[in-house]
Amino acid sequence: MPRISYQELFEALQSALLKLRIEPERASLCARLFAETTCDGIYSHGLNRFSLFVRTIRNGTVDIHARPELVGSYGALERWDGKFGIGNLNAYQAMDRAIELARRHGIGCVALANTNHWMRGGTYGWQAADAGLIGICWTNTLANLPPWGASDPLLGNNPLVIAVPRPEGHVVLDMAMSQFSFGRLNSYQMSGQQLPVTGGYDLEGQLTRDPAAIQKSQRPLPIGYWKGSGLALVLDLMAAMLSGGQATHQIPRDPELENGLSQNFIAINVTALDQNNSAAQIADQIIESLQASEGVRYPGENVLKTRRENLELGIPVEQSAWDELRSLADEAS
Amino acid sequence: MPRISYQELFEALQSALLKLRIEPERASLCARLFAETTCDGIYSHGLNRFSLFVRTIRNGTVDIHARPELVGSYGALERWDGKFGIGNLNAYQAMDRAIELARRHGIGCVALANTNHWMRGGTYGWQAADAGLIGICWTNTLANLPPWGASDPLLGNNPLVIAVPRPEGHVVLDMAMSQFSFGRLNSYQMSGQQLPVTGGYDLEGQLTRDPAAIQKSQRPLPIGYWKGSGLALVLDLMAAMLSGGQATHQIPRDPELENGLSQNFIAINVTALDQNNSAAQIADQIIESLQASEGVRYPGENVLKTRRENLELGIPVEQSAWDELRSLADEAS
Repeated sequence: MPRISYQELFEALQSALLKLRIEPERASLCARLFAETTCDGIYSHGLNRFSLFVRTIRNGTVDIHARPELVGSYGALERWDGKFGIGNLNAYQAMDRAIELARRHGIGCVALANTNHWMRGGTYGWQAADAGLIGICWTNTLANLPPWGASDPLLGNNPLVIAVPRPEGHVVLDMAMSQFSFGRLNSYQMSGQQLPVTGGYDLEGQLTRDPAAIQKSQRPLPIGYWKGSGLALVLDLMAAMLSGGQATHQIPRDPELENGLSQNFIAINVTALDQNNSAAQIADQIIESLQASEGVRYPGENVLKTRRENLELGIPVEQSAWDELRSLADEAS
Repeated sequence: MPRISYQELFEALQSALLKLRIEPERASLCARLFAETTCDGIYSHGLNRFSLFVRTIRNGTVDIHARPELVGSYGALERWDGKFGIGNLNAYQAMDRAIELARRHGIGCVALANTNHWMRGGTYGWQAADAGLIGICWTNTLANLPPWGASDPLLGNNPLVIAVPRPEGHVVLDMAMSQFSFGRLNSYQMSGQQLPVTGGYDLEGQLTRDPAAIQKSQRPLPIGYWKGSGLALVLDLMAAMLSGGQATHQIPRDPELENGLSQNFIAINVTALDQNNSAAQIADQIIESLQASEGVRYPGENVLKTRRENLELGIPVEQSAWDELRSLADEAS
């Protein structure tokens, strides 16, 4: 795969977004979020998702001019209407506002309705941690996961992000409720590999490590079986109830039409009560206690490693995705 | 198993706690929490844990006279010192305070250090939901779970509770980060059953459904493998950093000596912004959408069913545990 510099990727994204008539400041932030996601090695939600993102703008799923509007406020808890705007910009603004609320009140929560796919959820975790706060956020999604005990996809895989700031490297957990995403299943199948652990059911209803069989049955497993199934459900409940927006069962089930998502963003001002500046030390000691065992990595550790590597060597890009982006960027406007 | 009435169980517990010289009002609440846990069918953390609880009082792990003390406050975020007091009373007071904070600020967070085992975590979820709020809480524990990639138990199984209020029956998720607790493994072994899904490793390092093999290796699996391992870690980080208390790696690894736990309690005032009273309807529609599929149950559904059954028929008790409680209750003081 060719490698390109961060700056080159960013500029191509920015230029393509400007061609789509997104306002310059917003195009620039949106391009940065896509470029950072790619640079961090989350290719499926960076460059490789850009083409789908453009299609959702062109088909009206995403309204590029819409901006979130405050519709309810009660102290440290706010409700915003995302107006079907650009998903990553909406989410970024929501976490930004949660951070402001937490700086004022110690903890803040923004519930966002009528928004769109936020691309990489981890983005908003890194955002909070970079600001020195704990960030917790989740989104609902279209239905793509059968609950435990059923074979129909009645739940979303509802990613949950928890980010803990740490000077030596933030700890950022970014996990969907399915053991493997369909994207991951596809990668394993392409490379002819079995999954490292059981990932779903085959058409006969048997648990399997065969990625192709799970793609056929459309029955991936929730993490921890009944536990992840329950967690996906309560995340959807909280997202929809707090925002007053849609729940998974109401979201269009086609990725090109999926919109009207509900999301929650919580920030916690961990330094507000940390008079002895002990939190960073506590975090370091916990990470050190894990590293006593050789094979253990903390969530976010690989992201940092990949980020450094890609900034130094260039970001590996799929030739076809890169060509497509360049043609979007170069299009006559 | 004999069945006894809720009232009889409550009175025996109360009387035993009074004999231990716990102040009357506190003995009464503590007895209620143990009785409700048992009535709800969580026997392992109700009556069947009472004898261990008494031993931790007698050996000084738990200080029955200690009460939590506010040590830091910043708006909706507070830090309390549990003073090594009674775990369930400390946790109940912490969630009560989080609810107060959420009523004032929309969301509230209490971080509690130096506390003891909270018994059933779900208790504090039901508490918040009964008050009409969303409750989210978690605790760290002694190290009992190997992180993904290691064989030493460097993580706690750090239960996470998320409770969503709903007039027709709260949705209460109460889950530890291990797929099966050692108590559950023991029950399966006693009844000669294999686990329904893979639960850990055997001594040869192979994944297995044999409960005895996992008890031998002491290598239970985190839910979702690397995902639950990451979640257990961030819960410990947040618990210790926000409270300024101990992390899992510092907690004594003997259940009779386990103390100085760190816990977080978050309450969210879901009705504050819910002007059309739509949250309950949203919740009902979500639960209905799941019940389209027959085999699906929501978290908390079985608890309610068991509660009703046990209130009507009496609570089934292990004869030996019941005899022991009665002798504690009847002891000359």
